[in-house]
Amino acid sequence: MKTDIFTMISKTIPNWLHADAPASDIIISSRLRYARNIAGYRFPAWASDEELSEVFEMIQLALEYIQQSTTTEIVKLIKITDFTELQGEFLLERHLISPDFFKIFKSRIGKDKHLTTSGIFISNDETISIMVNEEDHLRFQVICGGFDFDSGFSKLNLLDDILDSTLRFAFSPQYGYLTACPTNVGTGLRVSIMAHLPGLVLTKEINQVLNSIWQLNYLTRGLYGEGTDTKGYFFQISNSITLGQSEQEIIQGMKNITTQLINHEQRSRDFLLKNMKTEIEDKVYRAYAILNSARLLNSDEALNLLATVRLGIVLQIISNVSLETINKVMILLKPANLQVFYNQVMNPYERDEKRAALIRTILQTSEN
Amino acid sequence: MKTDIFTMISKTIPNWLHADAPASDIIISSRLRYARNIAGYRFPAWASDEELSEVFEMIQLALEYIQQSTTTEIVKLIKITDFTELQGEFLLERHLISPDFFKIFKSRIGKDKHLTTSGIFISNDETISIMVNEEDHLRFQVICGGFDFDSGFSKLNLLDDILDSTLRFAFSPQYGYLTACPTNVGTGLRVSIMAHLPGLVLTKEINQVLNSIWQLNYLTRGLYGEGTDTKGYFFQISNSITLGQSEQEIIQGMKNITTQLINHEQRSRDFLLKNMKTEIEDKVYRAYAILNSARLLNSDEALNLLATVRLGIVLQIISNVSLETINKVMILLKPANLQVFYNQVMNPYERDEKRAALIRTILQTSEN
Repeated sequence: MKTDIFTMISKTIPNWLHADAPASDIIISSRLRYARNIAGYRFPAWASDEELSEVFEMIQLALEYIQQSTTTEIVKLIKITDFTELQGEFLLERHLISPDFFKIFKSRIGKDKHLTTSGIFISNDETISIMVNEEDHLRFQVICGGFDFDSGFSKLNLLDDILDSTLRFAFSPQYGYLTACPTNVGTGLRVSIMAHLPGLVLTKEINQVLNSIWQLNYLTRGLYGEGTDTKGYFFQISNSITLGQSEQEIIQGMKNITTQLINHEQRSRDFLLKNMKTEIEDKVYRAYAILNSARLLNSDEALNLLATVRLGIVLQIISNVSLETINKVMILLKPANLQVFYNQVMNPYERDEKRAALIRTILQTSEN
Repeated sequence: MKTDIFTMISKTIPNWLHADAPASDIIISSRLRYARNIAGYRFPAWASDEELSEVFEMIQLALEYIQQSTTTEIVKLIKITDFTELQGEFLLERHLISPDFFKIFKSRIGKDKHLTTSGIFISNDETISIMVNEEDHLRFQVICGGFDFDSGFSKLNLLDDILDSTLRFAFSPQYGYLTACPTNVGTGLRVSIMAHLPGLVLTKEINQVLNSIWQLNYLTRGLYGEGTDTKGYFFQISNSITLGQSEQEIIQGMKNITTQLINHEQRSRDFLLKNMKTEIEDKVYRAYAILNSARLLNSDEALNLLATVRLGIVLQIISNVSLETINKVMILLKPANLQVFYNQVMNPYERDEKRAALIRTILQTSEN
């Protein structure tokens, strides 16, 4: 593999993983995205390659025009119109593309690429990602670290306004923004948080809490979207309805849920510290020791161990490693990130060995 | 609990656990025992309390006489005629009594003890243990560290000769020494080794090896006799036949088996080092890290971890802890030993906490 844009990205950690964000001891990130389509063009699933290519060109021109005509930070974008399967997994692991978008690209690998029918534009700091011709012509997202829908929403709207000024979106006065899937019609706004809920898991309250969240029509999922396991105590919670609600209502709803979730998790952690201190210390010290000693670590085990150390840091059980370091390792340990980071294709065994070595090095060199 | 003989014993480690014994990287200990009965008295299961008491007195007098009339080191014995359930478990864990003997004592707890019907005599260094009125009137054993039947056998015979000079053993010219169970008739000699076979377990050759040992009429068991699990890669191998074989044949047979076993295990370890080095290092470093970090450790887990570290030491993967330290911890971690060592009755949770703390302390203070 030659060094490329992916290797460059792999050397930095996404801005939203910095540890000083609001409530970042419980909420890893807040994500907002709009679904939009260009008026007069069929949705991607029904469009011809020529239509898709035209749509892509139109959006690209709009973004280029914006980049030349404004100094706004958010529009300094990297264009990616081609990637290998490994690089696609890398983007997926970094939450820069969706599983559906990855599938679209996989189906194109090895085929004629004279027409650029889809691609993404991302900001340097990975806060912004714009997918062109996924399920809709445009899906653009903003991810902020911690619990922070306010700055996220203003960034998202700024981007929306800029795009809206040069593109004509498909919009119905009755339904709002038109989208390929009915669940996105209306505002086209999907908001979600990634929460770290070890307290609720370890006190076994998690199912009750998730149940009450479902009853309020929110979706809960694992680290990588629908149908993925919840690993390392990480849960993704998102709104399921966009039609019939204003953007403000959607965001306020998610804020309320998140605030309650933070309170619940905090109470569980207090309970653990008060009533199960030794058990938690046992878990945390073991996890840290294994991360510092193992010679082979698969990504699931490493993620679970890091998640436990994360709990240990926020409960002030261990202080010789920072949350920032844990966040950094959590991205690097993933199979595709690891390979792109080392610019080297590795089989699972080689990855487990390299992962263990990398984690040991990072933890030992970053010990306070 | 008041400080007593048990607490004193608990502070030392048995002589046979010192690490400089022959082949002690594979063979933990060699054990030999004779079963003998006093002529003219019924076997314990059929004898009255008065008969048992008479037998006990007779044996005690013989031992006292020996102690006064000779300077031989091996006959400086500690007499134990009473113990609590916890202390019985302690003796069992140290291989000083048998499970059957423990059962006999448990059935006596809380009952009238005017008559001393059974008891044990042990040497200070725990090399010799003499059980009176277990299944037979006399069961006396010698345990040596490592693979060492020669010095064990001469010690055992010395003891046998001394006892034989004052006691009259039940003996048939046709069958040899008479015993309660037919499997002991003849020489009354049972020999066994405790082997540490991680190589054969990890290369999955263990079942084949155990099978060939069974076919030669040897018994294989876990750490505490028949029906116990094999834990921490420890296996006990003993002869099953004493009738029709001379003592020399029995011992030579066990020596041959042991020599073959050592060769097999050594080959497996060489294979592991050559072909699975990283996996073994991973196991060893993890085990050592967990032992140094855990806040709660049950005895099975601790034993397995120590057994893995033991492998790491003999394979020279880690050098900052000695085999001697591991041997010491392996005895101390056992539930009853832990409680007797601390002279404190503890529930399982308290034990797990204390065990983890003790192991951490020992490993950290004994690091090379």
